[in-house]
Amino acid sequence: METQDQRPAKLHKLDKVGVSNLKTLVETRYKGRMYRFIPSIDLTIDLSGERKGIHMSRLVEAIAESIEETITAKTQEENASLEHLGKKVLAGLSQRHPFLKGQISFKADLVVKKKTPATRKNTFENHEIMVQVLYFRGGFRKKLSCEVYGNTVCPHSMQHTGKPHIQRAKATLTIETDYEREIDLEDMVDCVEESFSSPVYTLLKTEDEAWVVNRMHENPLFVEDVCRNIISGAQRFSDSRIKVKVVSEESIHRHDVVAEAESST
Amino acid sequence: METQDQRPAKLHKLDKVGVSNLKTLVETRYKGRMYRFIPSIDLTIDLSGERKGIHMSRLVEAIAESIEETITAKTQEENASLEHLGKKVLAGLSQRHPFLKGQISFKADLVVKKKTPATRKNTFENHEIMVQVLYFRGGFRKKLSCEVYGNTVCPHSMQHTGKPHIQRAKATLTIETDYEREIDLEDMVDCVEESFSSPVYTLLKTEDEAWVVNRMHENPLFVEDVCRNIISGAQRFSDSRIKVKVVSEESIHRHDVVAEAESST
Amino acid sequence: METQDQRPAKLHKLDKVGVSNLKTLVETRYKGRMYRFIPSIDLTIDLSGERKGIHMSRLVEAIAESIEETITAKTQEENASLEHLGKKVLAGLSQRHPFLKGQISFKADLVVKKKTPATRKNTFENHEIMVQVLYFRGGFRKKLSCEVYGNTVCPHSMQHTGKPHIQRAKATLTIETDYEREIDLEDMVDCVEESFSSPVYTLLKTEDEAWVVNRMHENPLFVEDVCRNIISGAQRFSDSRIKVKVVSEESIHRHDVVAEAESST
Amino acid sequence: METQDQRPAKLHKLDKVGVSNLKTLVETRYKGRMYRFIPSIDLTIDLSGERKGIHMSRLVEAIAESIEETITAKTQEENASLEHLGKKVLAGLSQRHPFLKGQISFKADLVVKKKTPATRKNTFENHEIMVQVLYFRGGFRKKLSCEVYGNTVCPHSMQHTGKPHIQRAKATLTIETDYEREIDLEDMVDCVEESFSSPVYTLLKTEDEAWVVNRMHENPLFVEDVCRNIISGAQRFSDSRIKVKVVSEESIHRHDVVAEAESST
Repeated sequence: METQDQRPAKLHKLDKVGVSNLKTLVETRYKGRMYRFIPSIDLTIDLSGERKGIHMSRLVEAIAESIEETITAKTQEENASLEHLGKKVLAGLSQRHPFLKGQISFKADLVVKKKTPATRKNTFENHEIMVQVLYFRGGFRKKLSCEVYGNTVCPHSMQHTGKPHIQRAKATLTIETDYEREIDLEDMVDCVEESFSSPVYTLLKTEDEAWVVNRMHENPLFVEDVCRNIISGAQRFSDSRIKVKVVSEESIHRHDVVAEAESST
Repeated sequence: METQDQRPAKLHKLDKVGVSNLKTLVETRYKGRMYRFIPSIDLTIDLSGERKGIHMSRLVEAIAESIEETITAKTQEENASLEHLGKKVLAGLSQRHPFLKGQISFKADLVVKKKTPATRKNTFENHEIMVQVLYFRGGFRKKLSCEVYGNTVCPHSMQHTGKPHIQRAKATLTIETDYEREIDLEDMVDCVEESFSSPVYTLLKTEDEAWVVNRMHENPLFVEDVCRNIISGAQRFSDSRIKVKVVSEESIHRHDVVAEAESST
Repeated sequence: METQDQRPAKLHKLDKVGVSNLKTLVETRYKGRMYRFIPSIDLTIDLSGERKGIHMSRLVEAIAESIEETITAKTQEENASLEHLGKKVLAGLSQRHPFLKGQISFKADLVVKKKTPATRKNTFENHEIMVQVLYFRGGFRKKLSCEVYGNTVCPHSMQHTGKPHIQRAKATLTIETDYEREIDLEDMVDCVEESFSSPVYTLLKTEDEAWVVNRMHENPLFVEDVCRNIISGAQRFSDSRIKVKVVSEESIHRHDVVAEAESST
Repeated sequence: METQDQRPAKLHKLDKVGVSNLKTLVETRYKGRMYRFIPSIDLTIDLSGERKGIHMSRLVEAIAESIEETITAKTQEENASLEHLGKKVLAGLSQRHPFLKGQISFKADLVVKKKTPATRKNTFENHEIMVQVLYFRGGFRKKLSCEVYGNTVCPHSMQHTGKPHIQRAKATLTIETDYEREIDLEDMVDCVEESFSSPVYTLLKTEDEAWVVNRMHENPLFVEDVCRNIISGAQRFSDSRIKVKVVSEESIHRHDVVAEAESST
């Protein structure tokens, strides 16, 4: 009998056992566009109290096999997003290894093309995203997350001195919903970007910089305001559980200020 | 009217608003011993949907004032641990600022003195710890956490080749319990250390190294075994919710393997 | 006159001024194969003591323009690696902005396809790489770097107890050479991988695991040995300055041990 | 013969071999004030091409012994700073282990007491500092470094729109000098703090916030200006090699901008 299948010394059930920080190449196709990611993957399953260990290499095989099938599947017209890949891995793994609960997450960089606000030049903006698929009792759910940069412009300082302090801020929007509910990561990014005092850009010519600075000063917001704006904006993603965290990297302090909220739509 | 007290544009209630990554000097006394920490502090409170913002500087003042009082209080014989400080900050803040729910956490380094296993020399071992105090509806609870290094020695490889692969592993034990329940961080560290294939030491002379290596080879454990050992050992901390995460930094892979569990005692 | 072109209050010459941590999408072609990276880019130039600032947006434009030209150029048969892109950015920037010294670096993930050692299955291995191009007085040089995971198996413990302690180790090989000297990052990765007690793999079936464990135990190496093996192996990259750093994440300690060396070939 | 003393397979000389990220408790006394640090320590020595390895545990012993002696020595009136400790470790190690070149560094948090700018309340500010002692051919030198937070206020945007963008910035000042040359870390921190558009504070009441915001808007500075201010200010530390790096965490971009310079006084 393999070591993993033996009875363990202590009979506690474990909630999550698996691999973490596994990086590999993934190619996907979503709405006709090709993407190439090198995501950091976590894949875990539960383990009954009767077995000493899981068979780790089967998790890695399930990932490898699904990635290869996804690449082949791309030649047909079907979608093959990170979500599809995640579901396929969990379904494939269930053929190799017993489990009641399983989850896989992909953390990756997503580059989005935009136009600069005044001179309308092309600019490319990178966001960290996370796609997670969860299996439990025959059903699939998913969590989608994006971390987006922007800024806050202090209205309290505006009121007292006529002048603001301004700083970079970072917001994370996480949506949990049914696997079938279609939500674009790009729409989530838009929802967050429009919630700051101003969106930020990698490329800014002098007129673009002026546009951003003017918008900042016309739109002073606390970290609390940004958090509420995101919750409001996320109402468009109906039937979801929404989680928002905003961190403002204060220019007048060496610590950060934060605002967090959860909500349902 | 101060900007913070105005009615916000969006009326969402926020769960946590406050300061994060605030580092300062804290002196405590616990069971007659003095400690000096430079913790990273997070302090957040909830915010009703009717107010635009919280008064951030009052949070910083509540921290500063309680630290000063704690230093003074030390001259008497009473205990003044991080927990006491956390409760004092929340109590002091409630005099300055309304809130229904509040929490403060301290992340810090805790150095513990040990003897090396064979030569019995002094050695000092550092662990990252976290102490959190939570206020809700007039009651206080707390979360205590420690992150401890050890190792795993693969029993599966032992079975197949007679030889193991071995690697550094890291386990985090988190206990949530009533504020009044007395639990020593040093006991939590012990509980985790004894759960690995072997404890690790900063100083090891040749005979000590031999002791550790022999113990490793006599005590092969999967990451799952270590997780279960910690859960079992943590039964000593009764009336608590236990959370354990173990990460094994595999020497045969470039990814990690993990095991996680939650339990109640 | 633009603010940047004004005379500064203090007339110190600056060595490096520019952008850092800029992430964007880059497509390259090297030896007939296509690559897609989302590198983190640093681009800096020197600044004379007579000018207050550089024109930052011109640096971003030079990057954006060169990336676009590289994509177009790929349709022809020429190579368009990260090095080519770096040189093109510096050459393009010199048309827009004066500088005497300039450097651009790309930090990215490089996934390499391998076979598992016993069962000969496909496995994909990710390495962090860095490509830097340096301009000075009309000439170009480059620095190539890769960070590769492996392991160390302690020969001292073997000698004393007949049993080793084993741990994950990480080595960084950096080569500085003329821009024209052709060196493949994949060859640098190979040079490092073969220098550890054993290479590591993302996928390992039971027989593969046995192969790796047997190799480890037959090939005990100190961190010092791994460092010397890499220096020796790197003699194949002639006319270069070699820099090696190896970090062994000790399984018997909570600290690391390191070995570093520089050499010329 | 111990494994370490054997002749290695490859005869390359190594520049630095030792321990890294070793954290322990250190108590020092400097100018009559007591300090307690939990520094992260790196200690490395060179290794001749004729020996397979160094004796790692002797490095840890040299650290442990010197820390203990320093604590004892404190009872006398003498200074026992991190520099003294570093020199003592290297001197002690040379009695146990041969080496030609050695260096030890301590990275730690240093909390400095200040007054808020308008209301004159006490506030405590934390800075990451590094103290390194280098031994070569019978002589000692040292490197002192501090990383300090502040901000930049864009003068280019001021010129074009009458309004600035503002952001948190971080500057690192490193000074290399003879071991005997006395330089206070607190003076280095002051030198950096006064070089930003404004210093930052952990505690700021409304009037203090107004003071900081007014100072920011009256003192717009590029990252280049901050870098030059620090170099100018560091002229007070004569007979030294100065290295400065400033990173501005732009509020209008998701990337940073940087300025670096080296100089001698």
